[in-house]
Amino acid sequence: MTGAGKDSDSDPVSQQELDEATLQLISSIAAAIRKSIEQGELPHIELPVRSLANVDYAVEKGYFALGKALKTRTLSVNTVRSFAQTLRLMAASRQMVQSNDFATKREAYYISKNWGECRFDEQAESDAIMDDIEALASLHGLSREQLRFYPESHGGSVAGALTVIDTDPETAEVLEIDCANLGSGAYSVPRSVEHLGFRTDAQFILAIETGGMFQRLNNHRFWKKARCILVEMGGVPTRATRRFIRRLSDSADIPVYCFVDCDPYGFANIYRTLKVGSGNAAHINQFFCVPRAQYLGVTPQDIIEYKLEDATHPLSKTDIKRARDAIKNDPFFASHPRWIAAIEQLLSMGVRAEQQALAKWGLNYVIDDYLPRKLKDMDSFLP
Amino acid sequence: MTGAGKDSDSDPVSQQELDEATLQLISSIAAAIRKSIEQGELPHIELPVRSLANVDYAVEKGYFALGKALKTRTLSVNTVRSFAQTLRLMAASRQMVQSNDFATKREAYYISKNWGECRFDEQAESDAIMDDIEALASLHGLSREQLRFYPESHGGSVAGALTVIDTDPETAEVLEIDCANLGSGAYSVPRSVEHLGFRTDAQFILAIETGGMFQRLNNHRFWKKARCILVEMGGVPTRATRRFIRRLSDSADIPVYCFVDCDPYGFANIYRTLKVGSGNAAHINQFFCVPRAQYLGVTPQDIIEYKLEDATHPLSKTDIKRARDAIKNDPFFASHPRWIAAIEQLLSMGVRAEQQALAKWGLNYVIDDYLPRKLKDMDSFLP
Repeated sequence: MTGAGKDSDSDPVSQQELDEATLQLISSIAAAIRKSIEQGELPHIELPVRSLANVDYAVEKGYFALGKALKTRTLSVNTVRSFAQTLRLMAASRQMVQSNDFATKREAYYISKNWGECRFDEQAESDAIMDDIEALASLHGLSREQLRFYPESHGGSVAGALTVIDTDPETAEVLEIDCANLGSGAYSVPRSVEHLGFRTDAQFILAIETGGMFQRLNNHRFWKKARCILVEMGGVPTRATRRFIRRLSDSADIPVYCFVDCDPYGFANIYRTLKVGSGNAAHINQFFCVPRAQYLGVTPQDIIEYKLEDATHPLSKTDIKRARDAIKNDPFFASHPRWIAAIEQLLSMGVRAEQQALAKWGLNYVIDDYLPRKLKDMDSFLP
Repeated sequence: MTGAGKDSDSDPVSQQELDEATLQLISSIAAAIRKSIEQGELPHIELPVRSLANVDYAVEKGYFALGKALKTRTLSVNTVRSFAQTLRLMAASRQMVQSNDFATKREAYYISKNWGECRFDEQAESDAIMDDIEALASLHGLSREQLRFYPESHGGSVAGALTVIDTDPETAEVLEIDCANLGSGAYSVPRSVEHLGFRTDAQFILAIETGGMFQRLNNHRFWKKARCILVEMGGVPTRATRRFIRRLSDSADIPVYCFVDCDPYGFANIYRTLKVGSGNAAHINQFFCVPRAQYLGVTPQDIIEYKLEDATHPLSKTDIKRARDAIKNDPFFASHPRWIAAIEQLLSMGVRAEQQALAKWGLNYVIDDYLPRKLKDMDSFLP
C-alpha cells in the first residue's frame, strides 16, 4: 500500500503534509498582501498565465505543461471585485481544509451569494477565478482537489483485483473496500481521490470506454483471469477518473491499457486526454495525465485482422476533420509516427469500428479471443 | 431480505422461476409458429400496440399502462425479414437465459451481423424489434432485463444503511455488499438488478438529483443520522437506477423521497419519470415506475421559506413551456391540484432554484437545517 499524494516526480507525501502545504500557501499569499497594505503599497497577486502561449508539450514528461509566464493582479478600481473574490475563495479553501470539508464548483459559486458586493453573478466568474487559484497552486504541486474544490462528476466504476483504502469521513476509522467482492456491481470512485490508498497484485489497469463492455468483462470475471483492474471511463474520462487511474498506476507501479472504440473521437478525445491531458488546462496535467497509458485497441489494423469490416460504420465529416487535425496540429500524435500511420490507415479505410463490434463473433469473443491475443502481442499496442 | 423479482402487484418469485417463465414464453411462441407451418398456415405473432393510442393513465396504479390492443405480424414477402429478426432475437434471449449471459442493445445489433440476409442494417431496426418483444414479454410480467437485453448505462451510486445481496457471476457464491462501508466512494448499481436481494433497516430512500449533493450527504454520513439510503440519480434516472429504487422500495417496504432542483425539468422530467414513467414506453412502467415516490424538494415555497430568492436564476423560455405543458397536458400533474398550484407559483415567481443554492447559507446548511426541517414536515412534500 502507498499513501496519498504520490506523483511521478515527487516522493510520496501524506494527506496531512499536503494539507499543511495548502494552508501554508494560502497563509503566505495573505501575509504578503497584508504586508503590502501595511507598507502603504498597492497589494498584488502573481498568477500563472493560462493562455496557450504559455503552454509547452514537454516530450520527456509526456504532457502539455504550463510555462513560467506570470500575470500580476494588482488591486485597483477595476480589479477590486476580482481581487476580493480571489481572496475570499482562498479563505473558503483554507476553512474547508481545516474542517475536512469540500465544495463543488457550483457550491463555491453559491456560497458567494452571502459576500455582499463581491458576490459572483455567474458561475463563469467563479470558475475563472478558481482556475487562476488552481494554476497558482499547481506551481506548488497542489491540485484543485487539495484546495477542496471538487468537480461535480464522480469517477468511473471500478472492479477487480484491488483493495481501496479509505477512511470513514466521520470517525477517521480505516476502511478497506475489496473491489473483487462487489458482485455484478462495482466501486464508484468519489469526486476526490487524493486521500485514497491502494493494495493490489494486479498486472495492469484496463481502462474501458463503454459501460456495456465494462459490465461484460466484470460479469465474466475477466479481471480474475487476466489479473487486472477494470475501470469504466464512460466516454471521455472525468477528472476524478483520470486522477484515480493516475494515482493507482503510480502507486502500484503498473501500466494502463486503453480499450476504446476505433474512431478519431476514441483516439483524440478519450485516449489522448487520459494520456497527455489537454493544452487548454495545462496547469492540471501534472496531476491528471497518465503518461504510462498505452492504446490496446481497437486499432485500425484490428478491423482487418479480426474481420470486422461488415460491422463498421462510415467515418462522418466530423470524424475526418478530427483525424486530420490530430495528425496535423496535435503535438502528441505528430510526435508518434505509428499514430500517424494508424490514423492515415483509418482515413483510407473510411470506416470506424466500436469495441462492441467484436460481438459479431459471439458475445464473449472479446474475452475468449480478442483480449488474450492482444495481451500476448503488446507490440500491436499504439503508443 | 427479499429475493429477486418482487413487484408490487405480484408475489415474490425467485430469479430461477422468472428464468423458467422467460424460457416458457419463448418456447410457446416458437411452438405455435411451428404448428402453423406444419398445418400449412402462414405463421404469425401477436404483439402489443405500442402507440400512445393504446396507453392509459391508470390512476389507481399510478402510472401509464399499456392497453389491450394487439397487432399481428404475419409472415409475408414484406415482413419476412422482420419476422425472422424477431425470432432470432428471441432465440438469442433464450440462449442468454440458459447460459446466464446478457447483451446490451448495441451488442444485440452487432450479433446480427452474422445472421446473413436478416442482419440489422441500423440499430434503430433492432431496437424497434426489441421493443416489440419487450412489450410482449411485459404482458407476462417479464421485463427486457429478464430477457437478458441490458441497457448501456449503469445505475446511479448508492451509499448508506443497506446491504446488497448478490451472487458471484462465476462461482454463484453469495456476496454481501455493505453500502455503509465504502468510505467516500459508493456502490455502483449494475445494468440489471433483477437478481439482487436487499437487507436494510433504513426508514426511507433519498433519491438525489446531483452528484455534488450526493457526495456532500455521503461524506457527512447524513444517511447514518437520518437512517436512510442515498441514491445519486445524476439527472433523469437511468433504467437501472429506476428499477433499483423500485425493487428496493418494494422489498424493504420504505418510501422514496426525491431531492431535486426546483425547476420544470426537475418536476416533469426527473421526478415524474421516476414516479409514473412515461407514456412513450408504457409497457415498461409496471417494472420501472415508483408510485411511492414523493417530492421532498426543492419546492417553489422553499425558495420563499429558505430565502433563496437571490440565489435563483430566471426561468428560460424552455422552462416556461415545459411548466405550462405539465399543467395542461400531463395527466399526472393535472390530477394533482397541489402540483398545479406549485407550478403556477413557480411561473409567477419567474425563477428556478437548484438544490445546491442552499449553500448560500453555508455548505452544510442542507444537512444541519434544511433536510431535518423538511423531514419533520412531510405535509410540505408534493405528491
